[in-house]
Amino acid sequence: MKMVIAIIQDRDWVKLSKGLTEHGYGVTKLSSTGGFLRQGNTTIMIGVEDEKVEDVLQLIRDNCKKKEIPMTLYPPSITGLNMTSPPVNVTVGGATVFVMNIEQFHHVE
Amino acid sequence: MKMVIAIIQDRDWVKLSKGLTEHGYGVTKLSSTGGFLRQGNTTIMIGVEDEKVEDVLQLIRDNCKKKEIPMTLYPPSITGLNMTSPPVNVTVGGATVFVMNIEQFHHVE
Amino acid sequence: MKMVIAIIQDRDWVKLSKGLTEHGYGVTKLSSTGGFLRQGNTTIMIGVEDEKVEDVLQLIRDNCKKKEIPMTLYPPSITGLNMTSPPVNVTVGGATVFVMNIEQFHHVE
Ligand code: NI
Ligand code: NI
Ligand code: NI
Repeated sequence: MKMVIAIIQDRDWVKLSKGLTEHGYGVTKLSSTGGFLRQGNTTIMIGVEDEKVEDVLQLIRDNCKKKEIPMTLYPPSITGLNMTSPPVNVTVGGATVFVMNIEQFHHVE
Repeated sequence: MKMVIAIIQDRDWVKLSKGLTEHGYGVTKLSSTGGFLRQGNTTIMIGVEDEKVEDVLQLIRDNCKKKEIPMTLYPPSITGLNMTSPPVNVTVGGATVFVMNIEQFHHVE
Repeated sequence: MKMVIAIIQDRDWVKLSKGLTEHGYGVTKLSSTGGFLRQGNTTIMIGVEDEKVEDVLQLIRDNCKKKEIPMTLYPPSITGLNMTSPPVNVTVGGATVFVMNIEQFHHVE
């Protein structure tokens, strides 16, 4: 059995969680933040049979792949002026995934 | 040395933590939630000597085993009516436990 | 590749995180509390190449070593009396570190 630990963006959690649940995988979400006060990360743990690791990785790829989205940045407002910038492309998504070995699995009933 | 990672119900945390501490095990509690927005789970990590794994598992079984408790469900109130349902049995408790290998252990003094 | 999991004191997080980031290590901070309701711990995860484990351990030692600091303890106030105690030395810092094996590492782009 394997433990898949993935660090994903918060924004991808709902759809990845939905995908994992629909495919029958139990997932645990840990509250987390990135290094040196960077916000917006979520760490998830999935215990999974060895032969299902690739399927879980594919679900992560499908739901967390990087993409560019146009975003309008608002500068500090200046009273009386109505400043707008053209939208810029911002890269979102991406994930870091670790797979570790599980020696024993127990289900306590 | 082994890392015991257990996902338990919040309601079992205080008594399991007390049991582990009384038996001399250090335990770390991570804030967590279950898959697809399910609430009420707690993830714990315990670093433990190989020969103590079974003792820790037994403490988890003792404190987290499933049981049925009677619970009265309150329907949305209807003004002027005093509706009560008979109590129903709800299953609580249970745990998922993973045991993983620890290659190095360091205590920083 | 290795997973370094360290349980440190909250007070050491900012400087350790800064040190890890400056040396190019990605670090994920998990919200955590210690056993039986003890507060003030932080759990961090660092995925790192085998040959960098010692460097990460040294950064943890440098930033989290135990030290004694003088602390003035304030007794419950008694109205009309201005009681102060001499400062006492309190030990802070220290860390528990586990190193585990990572079988696969994936970066989702
Ligand atoms: Ni599907
Ligand atoms: Ni006992
Ligand atoms: Ni340096």
